[in-house]
Amino acid sequence: MKLTLDLGSRSYDIILKRGALRRAGQLTNLTGRVMLVTDDGVPQKYVKALAAQCGRAILHVLPRGEVNKTPGHVQNIHSHMLAEGFCGGDVVAALGGGAVGDVAGYAAATYMRGVGLCLFPTTVAAQAGGAVGGMWMLNLDGRKNVLGTLYQPGIVVADPDVLKTLAPRQVSSGFGSILGMGLAAAPDLLEMLEADDPLQDAERLLYTGLLCTKELVQCDEAGLGERNFLYLGHTIGNAIEAAGRFETLLHGECVALGFLPMLESRTLLRRARAIMRRHALPLKHSCPIDTVLEQLKGSPWQQDGRYAAVRVKTAGQAYVELLTYEELRLLAGGADEKN
Amino acid sequence: MKLTLDLGSRSYDIILKRGALRRAGQLTNLTGRVMLVTDDGVPQKYVKALAAQCGRAILHVLPRGEVNKTPGHVQNIHSHMLAEGFCGGDVVAALGGGAVGDVAGYAAATYMRGVGLCLFPTTVAAQAGGAVGGMWMLNLDGRKNVLGTLYQPGIVVADPDVLKTLAPRQVSSGFGSILGMGLAAAPDLLEMLEADDPLQDAERLLYTGLLCTKELVQCDEAGLGERNFLYLGHTIGNAIEAAGRFETLLHGECVALGFLPMLESRTLLRRARAIMRRHALPLKHSCPIDTVLEQLKGSPWQQDGRYAAVRVKTAGQAYVELLTYEELRLLAGGADEKN
Repeated sequence: MKLTLDLGSRSYDIILKRGALRRAGQLTNLTGRVMLVTDDGVPQKYVKALAAQCGRAILHVLPRGEVNKTPGHVQNIHSHMLAEGFCGGDVVAALGGGAVGDVAGYAAATYMRGVGLCLFPTTVAAQAGGAVGGMWMLNLDGRKNVLGTLYQPGIVVADPDVLKTLAPRQVSSGFGSILGMGLAAAPDLLEMLEADDPLQDAERLLYTGLLCTKELVQCDEAGLGERNFLYLGHTIGNAIEAAGRFETLLHGECVALGFLPMLESRTLLRRARAIMRRHALPLKHSCPIDTVLEQLKGSPWQQDGRYAAVRVKTAGQAYVELLTYEELRLLAGGADEKN
Repeated sequence: MKLTLDLGSRSYDIILKRGALRRAGQLTNLTGRVMLVTDDGVPQKYVKALAAQCGRAILHVLPRGEVNKTPGHVQNIHSHMLAEGFCGGDVVAALGGGAVGDVAGYAAATYMRGVGLCLFPTTVAAQAGGAVGGMWMLNLDGRKNVLGTLYQPGIVVADPDVLKTLAPRQVSSGFGSILGMGLAAAPDLLEMLEADDPLQDAERLLYTGLLCTKELVQCDEAGLGERNFLYLGHTIGNAIEAAGRFETLLHGECVALGFLPMLESRTLLRRARAIMRRHALPLKHSCPIDTVLEQLKGSPWQQDGRYAAVRVKTAGQAYVELLTYEELRLLAGGADEKN
C-alpha cells in the first residue's frame, strides 16, 4: 500500500508493505553514501538488510531509549558525517522507533541546511504515523521535546514484518499511542484495538493510523491547529515521561496515562480503559502530580502562562484548550483518583 | 528608510535608520521576555540601549569571534532559555555582527520549533545585508558553516550610528564583504566603495546592499540559485578563514581574498584590487593553497565531488560553476601568483 503526503514541492510517499525493508533500494535511491542511524535495540538482521540496500552504508548506532534524544547525540552524528565527508547529495536513513527518527531527522535537517532523509520505522507507533510529518524533537537538560525542527523526509517505509521481534510491552506501548490517535481523530482505530491481537491485521491498523496522520499533517503542517489532535495525551504524558527520567515508563504508556484526564465522555473513558487493560497498559503511575506538572514549566505546551492540551468530547471530536496550572492539576489529579 | 522582504506569510521589515536602536521598542514588540544575545566586543552602551527597550531582557554574552559560532554555544543559549522559562511567545534578539546573528538565529529557529527573532546588526557587512535572509550557519569541528537552518526573523533593524565605534580594520572587513556583493550583483556599490570614506553616506551604501540582498533572497530564499551570488568569494574565502582557525583574518578579508580568483575580467580585477588597497584590505595571505583547499572537503560547497563557486564575467554578471579540485586549485594558485 502506498500513501502520498501532499505538501506541494515537499510531497513524499509512505510505503506500507511486508518485506519492504529488504527492497528499500528499489523504493528510493540509496546508491550513494548513507548514514544509517539506528539504536542498539534494533535487531542486527534489520540493520544488515537495510545496509545491504545501500551503496555505501556508514553505521551510527545510538544507545536505545528516549533519554538519548539529545543535542549531544545529534552533534555526534554531525561529526561522524563530517568525518566521512558527507555533503548535500548524501542521505541519512533512520532505522528505529520514535527516538531514532527524532535524532536522525534533526541531524539531517540541520547538516548543510538539509540532506536527504529516509525513515524506516521499526515500532508500532512510528509505523502508524509517528515517522510521518517531519517534526523532529529533542530533549534538553532532562525536559522533553524542548528543541525541534520541521523538515520533511523523502520517503517513509513501514515494513510490518519487523514488528514481529518487538517485546510485548513495546507493542502495547505502541497501542497506547494509536489509541490516543483513535480517540482524538480516528474512531475506527478503537474497534481494531478492541481485538485480542490488533497486529493480526497489522496493515489495516497501520494504514488507518497513517491515513489519519497524513490528513492532519496536510491541513496543518506547522502544527498550529488540527495536527495537534495527534498529540492527545502528550501534555501530561510528556511530563510523566520526563518526571520518570524517560526510564520508568515507555512513551505510549505515558501518552495513555496522559489522555485519560482529557476524555470528557464517561462512556469513552470506560472504553479507553478497557482497551488499555486488554493490552496490559498501566492505568496509573506512582509519580506525585506536582512533580509531574513541574515538568511542564518551560515546555512547548506552555503559552502565555497557560498550558495547551488536546481534549476530547466524544470519539473523534477533539479540540485544543489552554488550561491554567490549577485547571490542569485538577483534571490530572481527578483522573488519578478515578483510577 | 524601510524595506520589506516579501516572502508571503513570512515577510518582514528591514529598518535602516540612525538612532533606531534606541527606539527598538517602537519598531517591534519587545514587551515580553527577551533573550538578548550579544558578544563581548559589542560596546556596553548599545547593549544597555537595547535592554532598556525590552520588557524583561535576559542577557547572554558570547565570546567575540567567528570561532565561537558552534553548536555548543547554541546549546548554552537553549539551556539559558529553558532555565529562564522561555516558551513559544518569547523573543530572541541578536545584537552583534554575523557570528552573533548566526548563533542567535540558529538558537531561535530550533527552540520549541521556533520563537520570535529580531536582528540588530552592529557591523558593516551585517547591516548591508548579512543579517537579512534567515540563513543561520554554524561551524563544526573547525570547519566553517557545516550546519545550517533557514528561519526568517520578524524584523531586522540596522542603526548606522553604531558603526562609529567599530575599529578601522572591522570597517574595512565589512567593505570586503560589500565589495563582493557589488562585483557579483550590484555594481553601484563599486563606485561608493571607491570613495575615501564610504561611510560618509552610510545610508546609501547600506540601502544599496540591503536592496540587492532583498531581491536575491526573494527570488531564491532556499539558496539554490541566484541567492548564491551574495556568496561570491565564500568558496575559497571560507576555506582561508577555517585554515587560519578563524583567528588570522576577518571574514570580509577572507571573502575579498576568495573572490579575486573568481573575476574573469582583468579590468574588473584591477578595479577590485584598487578598492581593496584603498581600504587596506590584504591582497594576499600566507597559507599554502593545499592547506586552504583541504578545508573545502566536506564543505557545503562540495557537490558530487566538485565544488560550487560563484564566478563573475563583468561587474554584476555572476554565475555559479561546479569546479573540480584541480580547476579550483589552478584558479586559486593562479590568482596567488598574480598577486
